[in-house]
Amino acid sequence: MSLFDRLVVATLPLVPKLIVGKVASRYVAGETLDDAIRTIQELNREGASCTVDLLGEEVKDAAKAQVAVDEYLRVLEAIRREKLDCNISIKPTQLGLDIDEDLCRDNYEKVVKVAHADDCFVRLDMEDRTTVDATLRIYRHLHERYGNVGPVFQAYMRRTLQDIEELPDDVARVRLCKGIYIEPREAAWKGFDTVRLNFIQALEKLLAKDIYVGIATHDEYLACAAVGLIDRMGISRDRYEFQMLLGVENQLRRILIAGGHPLRVYVPYGADWYLYSMRRLRENPQVAGNVTRALLTGK
Amino acid sequence: MSLFDRLVVATLPLVPKLIVGKVASRYVAGETLDDAIRTIQELNREGASCTVDLLGEEVKDAAKAQVAVDEYLRVLEAIRREKLDCNISIKPTQLGLDIDEDLCRDNYEKVVKVAHADDCFVRLDMEDRTTVDATLRIYRHLHERYGNVGPVFQAYMRRTLQDIEELPDDVARVRLCKGIYIEPREAAWKGFDTVRLNFIQALEKLLAKDIYVGIATHDEYLACAAVGLIDRMGISRDRYEFQMLLGVENQLRRILIAGGHPLRVYVPYGADWYLYSMRRLRENPQVAGNVTRALLTGK
Repeated sequence: MSLFDRLVVATLPLVPKLIVGKVASRYVAGETLDDAIRTIQELNREGASCTVDLLGEEVKDAAKAQVAVDEYLRVLEAIRREKLDCNISIKPTQLGLDIDEDLCRDNYEKVVKVAHADDCFVRLDMEDRTTVDATLRIYRHLHERYGNVGPVFQAYMRRTLQDIEELPDDVARVRLCKGIYIEPREAAWKGFDTVRLNFIQALEKLLAKDIYVGIATHDEYLACAAVGLIDRMGISRDRYEFQMLLGVENQLRRILIAGGHPLRVYVPYGADWYLYSMRRLRENPQVAGNVTRALLTGK
Repeated sequence: MSLFDRLVVATLPLVPKLIVGKVASRYVAGETLDDAIRTIQELNREGASCTVDLLGEEVKDAAKAQVAVDEYLRVLEAIRREKLDCNISIKPTQLGLDIDEDLCRDNYEKVVKVAHADDCFVRLDMEDRTTVDATLRIYRHLHERYGNVGPVFQAYMRRTLQDIEELPDDVARVRLCKGIYIEPREAAWKGFDTVRLNFIQALEKLLAKDIYVGIATHDEYLACAAVGLIDRMGISRDRYEFQMLLGVENQLRRILIAGGHPLRVYVPYGADWYLYSMRRLRENPQVAGNVTRALLTGK
């Protein structure tokens, strides 16, 4: 990170909501489900499949968690109606993990049950280290009953290789990403190169166990390493997909699709764009600089 | 390395002994065997095993080598008496390798014989390239007669993969480290990433030959690579240990122990702390800056 980037990250909490909002417009499909549907249709035409994420997390109120459940049921209905090539991703704290694990699990179950009838997959997003054990417990509960669910492993977590070891034999689909939350050294490997290394180690382990992997990265180096592993291990195209966030590295996305690799785009929508956009900003601080410049100069 | 660090390294020979002494206090248990025992007991309580190193090297006088032999016999007596979880590490030039190889071998034999009766392991430390052949000859001599000895391989040496190839089948325990001496390009791989790569290559080769490895590193990246290899190759916890120097990366040491990995700390003690501390300084030059600042400002 450059000195300027460090400065931007340190002052991120001071960034005016107007600027974060402008940034959000790059990473978020819009505030409504219709906005999301339009974006997904466009991406489907481009050859990418999608996963929808309703923005919102750290919910402290059961009624708000129920609103999220109802909205996800509307999303499933839209996927069915519009025949979208799309599944859904849900954050545990959006369904009430911070309130009560049983409440959260029951909320997931309401959505997963309907998705199961539709033959639609549900990703349990992974949040910070304090949520990992509960999320994996909820995953296993749903997996045993429905099967159309999958967890996420974060390459920066020191526990990830062990967590992969403990997966059920008939696990459906796993997503592997680097991880974006701020974690202490006790929990997470430190250093850009080290996290890349562990991503490759975890990916190789997942592929060797013949687990379908969503390779979630925008890192050119890791894309190259993944293509290399897929080639060396003879992994067929129905055993993996690349995954990328809406608005990040559109060029690499098009390149991978053109190369014949299955690729899924994570499409967030909704009014609660603030925390998500702040994480995107932290990862990519120069975006804030560009937006600030644009706002100041009108260009 | 920053420009400041480069400057510090270039001027290291000019660093006053007072400052090096202050630095030594961070990396050395103290001047006496009692100091070492206290440090080892503390580390044992923390869950780390230890290896003791009596400071001193490049001995040019047989009487001084004999003093080192006698002191190591006192160390073995203390390990036995205090029931320490601890073995010993000895530098060939401390036992007279610069004087005569036979003298050095006989001196080792005096110590190894007693250690053998105690069921205690003796590590033959590795020094610069001029000592490698003689050290490996002495190692093989002792290995055939006693067995409780093991050599060190330095990942930066171009010969290391070949040296591993030529190990006896029933080798006891090997230590693998990067290497810290200043070597010409003819002898040593150059470049930080290159040495890391050869460390991983050598580690994989040792583990594949089912040799017990002391993985001596403070590099987060190599710790991650080692954990990955151990996981992928299914190496059980009685087939390796991590090794770290006293006073270096205490946080990573605690993290690895908490992760259930066996870990041994190299505990140096004695009056001859100058050369050892200069090597530590060269590896970690900002320590000299911190110490200088502390001496100047009294903080």
